[in-house]
Amino acid sequence: MIVKGNLIDCDKNGTIRIRENTYLIVESGIISKIYSEDEIPNSLKNEKIEDYKNALIIPGLIDMHLHAPQFSFRGLGMDMELLDWLNTYTFPEETKYKNMDYAKKAYPKFVKALTNSFTTRAVIFSTLHKEATVLLMDMLEKTGLKCFVGKVNMDRNSSGELIETTSESIDATREWLNTCKNRYKNTKPIITPRFIPSCSDELMKELGEIRGDTYGLQSHLSENPKEVEWVRDLCPDSDGYLDAYDKRGCLNKSDIGTVMAHCVYSDEKEMELLKKRDVYVAHCPQSNICLSSGIAPIRKFLDRGIKVGLGSDIAAGYSLNILNQAVEAIGLSKLYWRYIDSNSKPLELAEAFAMATRNSGPYFGNIGAFEEGFEADILVIDDEALNDGVDDIRKRFERFLYLSDECSLISKYVAGEKIIIS
Amino acid sequence: MIVKGNLIDCDKNGTIRIRENTYLIVESGIISKIYSEDEIPNSLKNEKIEDYKNALIIPGLIDMHLHAPQFSFRGLGMDMELLDWLNTYTFPEETKYKNMDYAKKAYPKFVKALTNSFTTRAVIFSTLHKEATVLLMDMLEKTGLKCFVGKVNMDRNSSGELIETTSESIDATREWLNTCKNRYKNTKPIITPRFIPSCSDELMKELGEIRGDTYGLQSHLSENPKEVEWVRDLCPDSDGYLDAYDKRGCLNKSDIGTVMAHCVYSDEKEMELLKKRDVYVAHCPQSNICLSSGIAPIRKFLDRGIKVGLGSDIAAGYSLNILNQAVEAIGLSKLYWRYIDSNSKPLELAEAFAMATRNSGPYFGNIGAFEEGFEADILVIDDEALNDGVDDIRKRFERFLYLSDECSLISKYVAGEKIIIS
Repeated sequence: MIVKGNLIDCDKNGTIRIRENTYLIVESGIISKIYSEDEIPNSLKNEKIEDYKNALIIPGLIDMHLHAPQFSFRGLGMDMELLDWLNTYTFPEETKYKNMDYAKKAYPKFVKALTNSFTTRAVIFSTLHKEATVLLMDMLEKTGLKCFVGKVNMDRNSSGELIETTSESIDATREWLNTCKNRYKNTKPIITPRFIPSCSDELMKELGEIRGDTYGLQSHLSENPKEVEWVRDLCPDSDGYLDAYDKRGCLNKSDIGTVMAHCVYSDEKEMELLKKRDVYVAHCPQSNICLSSGIAPIRKFLDRGIKVGLGSDIAAGYSLNILNQAVEAIGLSKLYWRYIDSNSKPLELAEAFAMATRNSGPYFGNIGAFEEGFEADILVIDDEALNDGVDDIRKRFERFLYLSDECSLISKYVAGEKIIIS
Repeated sequence: MIVKGNLIDCDKNGTIRIRENTYLIVESGIISKIYSEDEIPNSLKNEKIEDYKNALIIPGLIDMHLHAPQFSFRGLGMDMELLDWLNTYTFPEETKYKNMDYAKKAYPKFVKALTNSFTTRAVIFSTLHKEATVLLMDMLEKTGLKCFVGKVNMDRNSSGELIETTSESIDATREWLNTCKNRYKNTKPIITPRFIPSCSDELMKELGEIRGDTYGLQSHLSENPKEVEWVRDLCPDSDGYLDAYDKRGCLNKSDIGTVMAHCVYSDEKEMELLKKRDVYVAHCPQSNICLSSGIAPIRKFLDRGIKVGLGSDIAAGYSLNILNQAVEAIGLSKLYWRYIDSNSKPLELAEAFAMATRNSGPYFGNIGAFEEGFEADILVIDDEALNDGVDDIRKRFERFLYLSDECSLISKYVAGEKIIIS
């Protein structure tokens, strides 16, 4: 496959790189060569070329944190903080996925929306229900998107029926992982303790064991002051929230990394451990606003070399559009600078875009930029609606980033495969 | 005219009011009667009815602050604070409107976008150029939208050619007001000193005189710390920024009120004067984020009975969609509560919606709700794209408010006239 057009991505220094009228040669899903108009061999010029002319072409976007079952109430119930919000809106909704008829009705809407979005790769929470999780994974597999999906574990502090015993949780996790074996090409299971308050020490330790060096792990960290306080009470043995995960063996070295969502209240000590354990922070700015959680110290993470990606955190965030998260991240960093730490300079546009692409890409492999050897995750964007006399591609891109909801997605490729959008 | 459908507005207590399958009877642009399905007289049932069935119907939205000439660079140049941003991006762009060829090319794009937006009424800055301002007003007049438009005054501290002498500014203002007389049905001139740093004492006093009891006045207030400090230096006679306007006679009692954009750094004393002079605060949350300005103390304004509307502040804000401003206003109020004042409880959805409708409506007359005697400003919304199994109108509305960019505008009426959207 050959794709031609105006390529915009971040180079390895994190700078916006623009290559107009440039050819991506894709073989077996991998970008094998990149040619400018001058460089392209004549032999290739006669091949079939997907020429996207004046459109904008960017790498596929990565959503490092979202909850598939919560898609059904996105944009609703934004009037509470985390713990009340979980008990009032989230747990009752997630309970419904015990019923496969409900899951069969609800999940297709989420899967369709994700397929039509700018997201090509995602790290996703399901519910604690094994069957519904497999259903979700089967459906995602067919789209061609590449996702990690986790059956959630929770054996304490839940409400109603949304709870497992410790052994149920462990057994179901093992069975689910078995079911997943050899079943998927695009979809991978990921170990998913909901958060410390939902998982007993025993369960957490066992999940660390199951993880071993095989699986990735996703969870929540230091999102809300009351939650942080609760974790301190629950884990008197631990020196902080992340240390509680660590002491329970959840952050062990694995082939696939750890993703921790939020990290709003991570202090210096926690940052050190985030760095030491090579954790990916999933920054979810819209969620952090909507649940009144606060502003994560992203500049400090970046200064310390901690990896940071972006998450929609559906449904604490309401928009699946990761560029909206990038814009919110820039905005929050400005307020952080203004009100919390004048030494933390605001994020630049390129930094926010890198979080959505190149900086979180390595969680999935060689992903997130147009480089030889990288997988071909490609979005082709029609920004015609915004394009009133601005010709400069850099400016078009900047405006697109802020106003992407007014643009449309022409084509979407994941590892070279064209995704069917509707 | 009879419009039928699911009406959603704020009642006089500021509560979201939902009236399903309800009839609005509109005579000469005014809502003369409102009937439920049970109440509608048979005689009317045989009239032609615009039946919008399952759509959502809300009052037209009001944009209390935006800069028409800046539309051309919306979404660009979000990397500076106010004063640098003005000198680097804004003043050079506004200078171009001296050239009528440029204005004739640029303004139609703004006018089209505003016409297609959810906004029915707006309070707009033009540039200091009389001719281009009249052009803008002529074009807005034809759309059917009802707008206040101001030729900007600035006789100091500008850059390059974007400046007038004091007498030029005064003369041009008088000539422009003369030109406007009897020329428009929908469009009204409004006195528009850019802000204190742009207007000498002499000019400001003269504008207060010209305003008299005839015209409204719009300007900027207490947006950025450095600007506030500058105004303190410029006006040693005054006890604060708003007091500087007051002492120069700009806030005198007029038939049409005063709009002050931003008010991020208004202290107790300034709030007292805002209340005393019956000023409308144009809260521009997106702008206040983008220019790192800060968070306005909106809860305090509301507690003190100060009038608050919403402004897109194009191009310091990037989106013309006033519902995006409503969502940002809620978000900022949560951060204000979290970081600045835990006694200032976050805004509720209904409060933000009221700012966009009923609370700013009185600036234009009986506007902003579906009440008998109110002008018929009506938006009909297709929220099909969001409507995945949520039937409850209240919930559909809540989701629409957060995700309005995914919805489309079916019909738009201003004072009973159907607006042509494209």
